[in-house]
Amino acid sequence: MTTHYFEHPLNEKTRIYLRVEALLNQLNSAGQFSDDMQHLTFFRSLFDLIEIFEQIQLKSELAKDIEKQRLAYRSWLNVEGVNQDMLRNVLSEIDDVHRNLMSAERFGQSLKEDRFLSAIRQRFNLPGGSCCFDLPALHHWLHLPIEKKRADASQWLNTLKPLSIALKQWLKLTRETGHFRPIDAKNGFYQSDADEANILRLELPVHYGVYPMISGHKNRFAIKFIDFESGQASVDDIQFKLAVCS
Amino acid sequence: MTTHYFEHPLNEKTRIYLRVEALLNQLNSAGQFSDDMQHLTFFRSLFDLIEIFEQIQLKSELAKDIEKQRLAYRSWLNVEGVNQDMLRNVLSEIDDVHRNLMSAERFGQSLKEDRFLSAIRQRFNLPGGSCCFDLPALHHWLHLPIEKKRADASQWLNTLKPLSIALKQWLKLTRETGHFRPIDAKNGFYQSDADEANILRLELPVHYGVYPMISGHKNRFAIKFIDFESGQASVDDIQFKLAVCS
Repeated sequence: MTTHYFEHPLNEKTRIYLRVEALLNQLNSAGQFSDDMQHLTFFRSLFDLIEIFEQIQLKSELAKDIEKQRLAYRSWLNVEGVNQDMLRNVLSEIDDVHRNLMSAERFGQSLKEDRFLSAIRQRFNLPGGSCCFDLPALHHWLHLPIEKKRADASQWLNTLKPLSIALKQWLKLTRETGHFRPIDAKNGFYQSDADEANILRLELPVHYGVYPMISGHKNRFAIKFIDFESGQASVDDIQFKLAVCS
Repeated sequence: MTTHYFEHPLNEKTRIYLRVEALLNQLNSAGQFSDDMQHLTFFRSLFDLIEIFEQIQLKSELAKDIEKQRLAYRSWLNVEGVNQDMLRNVLSEIDDVHRNLMSAERFGQSLKEDRFLSAIRQRFNLPGGSCCFDLPALHHWLHLPIEKKRADASQWLNTLKPLSIALKQWLKLTRETGHFRPIDAKNGFYQSDADEANILRLELPVHYGVYPMISGHKNRFAIKFIDFESGQASVDDIQFKLAVCS
């Protein structure tokens, strides 16, 4: 049975984290420049990231959240029944990630100082603004050998490595706290309490032809299913799986 | 010898035309949805187009320009030495295109009225805003069979056919008015007069490692070549080819 996989953040910070994760994934794929349009996705994602870095202090927020995770894991030290070797491994990984994060530059600093990137950033956001006459330098760059373009992309992405590694780890450990269990949404609706939750994860069978509209916060949430064709709330009973991750 | 190909519009309207042409090309390629990121380019280009339609009366501007082209071609009727069969063919094509353009809806009207498109348009412009939690309807749509997605794309693009055909023809006839001739830009600089020109086209050998910065208007223009590596104006003599199209 084919299923859709949905994730929903239950606070603003996690919302940003998931957006940043998606942008980093797009950058990694599009940075191959394997067709003549991937550069559009690549630079758009890069400039979106820089905009996010300008809006929030992502580095310190992430460091605080990783610190919280570290404390939570530490509380399991010397608790009977907990695999202590595994726990120490996780804690040592968290230490590494946290240290590298703290010693990293302000996210996006080198990208903002890059002459080529800052020259093309502004025009890139005009509707249709990636034409050769708007961005002749970009047009020249596009004609460079693919190895050179990939090397440039790697160099830009390397400056985001500490962010990428820290975010990936925080999201991995957060996602692991949740366990999928079957839910029956009567009349296309389900609500529940949560306990300091960060992310809801849903596995939804395709055949219902619905998608979830989710509202809520870390301690309470509601899921309403919308029929894709009609755009109206579904009144069907929907059986799906839900994991609440904190 | 590898060459770069640059185009530069000499007035604001042509600038828009070339951007719209680029967006339509992107839509046609990305509308294949042949990897998991092309939808980003597809919807971005579509929404960029709608934004342009909101900013200028593209349909009436284009109709006026096609009318001008028709008058110019008509002036060659019954002129000795001009292939009259070929001329009548062109004139009849212009008539068709103009008629279809005039009877078309306001550009983008159906796209703006499309429930699915208008639901996703606003969030799509947020940095990283194409995540499943921002746009669950889009996420559902992405999981539909590729034939369905391509059919939707075709249906949306069909509403732009009169624009696409008219623009393509105007640009084709405009580009055909210019003929490439060799130019020697002493110390990386060249300027010249023009006569009601719309587009400059350049063929520039790659080995110089420069790109053109062009300023000017329909009756006069200047081309300065910039060294890509240093970002400074080049002082080398640059031999390139130039076509001035009106």
